[in-house]
Amino acid sequence: MRLARYRNEQGESYGVLTDKEVICLPSTARRLNIEFPERLEDFINLGAKGVERAENLVKEALENYVKVSSSVSNVRLLSPITSPPKIVCLGLNYRDHAAESGATIPDEPIIFVKPHTTIIGPNEKIVKPSFVEQLDYEAELAVVIGRKVKNVPASDAESCIFGYTILNDVSARDVQFKDRQWTRGKSFDTFAPTGPSITTLNQLRDASNLSIRTWVNKELRQNSTTKNMVFNISDIVHHLSRVMTLEPCDLIATGTPAGVGFAMKPKPKFLQTGDIIRIEIEKIGSLENVVVEGN
Amino acid sequence: MRLARYRNEQGESYGVLTDKEVICLPSTARRLNIEFPERLEDFINLGAKGVERAENLVKEALENYVKVSSSVSNVRLLSPITSPPKIVCLGLNYRDHAAESGATIPDEPIIFVKPHTTIIGPNEKIVKPSFVEQLDYEAELAVVIGRKVKNVPASDAESCIFGYTILNDVSARDVQFKDRQWTRGKSFDTFAPTGPSITTLNQLRDASNLSIRTWVNKELRQNSTTKNMVFNISDIVHHLSRVMTLEPCDLIATGTPAGVGFAMKPKPKFLQTGDIIRIEIEKIGSLENVVVEGN
Repeated sequence: MRLARYRNEQGESYGVLTDKEVICLPSTARRLNIEFPERLEDFINLGAKGVERAENLVKEALENYVKVSSSVSNVRLLSPITSPPKIVCLGLNYRDHAAESGATIPDEPIIFVKPHTTIIGPNEKIVKPSFVEQLDYEAELAVVIGRKVKNVPASDAESCIFGYTILNDVSARDVQFKDRQWTRGKSFDTFAPTGPSITTLNQLRDASNLSIRTWVNKELRQNSTTKNMVFNISDIVHHLSRVMTLEPCDLIATGTPAGVGFAMKPKPKFLQTGDIIRIEIEKIGSLENVVVEGN
Repeated sequence: MRLARYRNEQGESYGVLTDKEVICLPSTARRLNIEFPERLEDFINLGAKGVERAENLVKEALENYVKVSSSVSNVRLLSPITSPPKIVCLGLNYRDHAAESGATIPDEPIIFVKPHTTIIGPNEKIVKPSFVEQLDYEAELAVVIGRKVKNVPASDAESCIFGYTILNDVSARDVQFKDRQWTRGKSFDTFAPTGPSITTLNQLRDASNLSIRTWVNKELRQNSTTKNMVFNISDIVHHLSRVMTLEPCDLIATGTPAGVGFAMKPKPKFLQTGDIIRIEIEKIGSLENVVVEGN
């Protein structure tokens, strides 16, 4: 299933997203007198068992005609997770992007950590600070962790994954390249648009060849597949879990493919105020955000 | 005042630390029928007003002979904050350390972010992964943020500071230097010993010339003063707040002075299993941790 957080006239909630509607899980559960987490982050803490419970809940609700839902046009989707315990991001994890950056392909994942204050949701605004001149996008497949784990072998890594979403690793290249350390240029508020929803693992068992594309306004910029990753999802989870305890709701952004603005030929194309960035990942969805000018 | 989290026979709590005892704030408040936060992190969310309330509470308790306290020898101190919204760390922020590293002094703070899973408390064990060969310490003065703030001028930065503690930015140099990005080598579980307590701002108005020292076993390794910082505390808070929203309980580790292991002459001295690292910062306290071998 696809899980989304949203806001409508009744307030904020979360549920199962289909093409036409969102089925509110907490409200539907109340109608059936079933205990159910009030927040998506608490639901994710239940891991795969939660997904099973949600599937049974929806089935029972349909059978009993008590489904509580909103039309997609009447809700505003929000970032699925607002306070992940961590946002761990990989650099140079696509062969095509390493090549366009003139960088060597790493033999172990190179990481940085984004603060949670970077997160915004679908259709929220990316704020370009006035002193940033080289704003750029990076389409990334993001893993949502569903289970606390340390030192997991690659062969068992899938068992820790709750699902997948999209994360745009927005980057101020002037700051990033000046510092040489990547973190500051990637840590500005609003620099991690996330969503539109989480596709659960049982619906997406194989993330190893998903098309991943980015448009800026109408121009296709990134057009690759997760097949071009240097480290696949299982290897990434394995390697990271040797460093740190992974926890439910952690987001792992798995790197970006070729086609970022700074590598455009004959010259870089950085994001300008008013630009609309749309990222699509197969079987996950599309995430759109506009750039506005900040202080 | 100095605030500490601790565990004793009654469980975990927090309170005011003196040389001899810890006065439990929540229990003392209950005796006086005063509402008071149950957790130190919630208390920090009250900012400077919370400190004032705590001072009044202790005064009233002493007057009424209802103080609830434990002898320091009967408690085990814990890391003051276990889940900071962020741990932002500065690199190369001491002139003496930049010099020993052969690095240029930066003209803006260079940062990285440590995941919260790195945090341990006083006397907890630093776990050296078996595949890490060049384990090192970094004594750092850590700012505890007390107020949500964005874009704060340096002249007003003090108003966002709740207090100060010590953070040991433990680093796997082999990983750090191999990646060139600093994050992974500094992100292993247990790589951020923190504590022993938080000295509140009203007790430490001027952090600009505090002695900061590190011993490994009996050998003095770092012996400097916060006067050698490149960016002072107010400048750091100002600069970071232009990048990200700072929030209560955020930790900002302000960089380390000269004397780290990798810069020892004639050859580096890395940490070995069994080594005890003790960091002392004037007016804050001393933080001691031992190294053990991990997987």
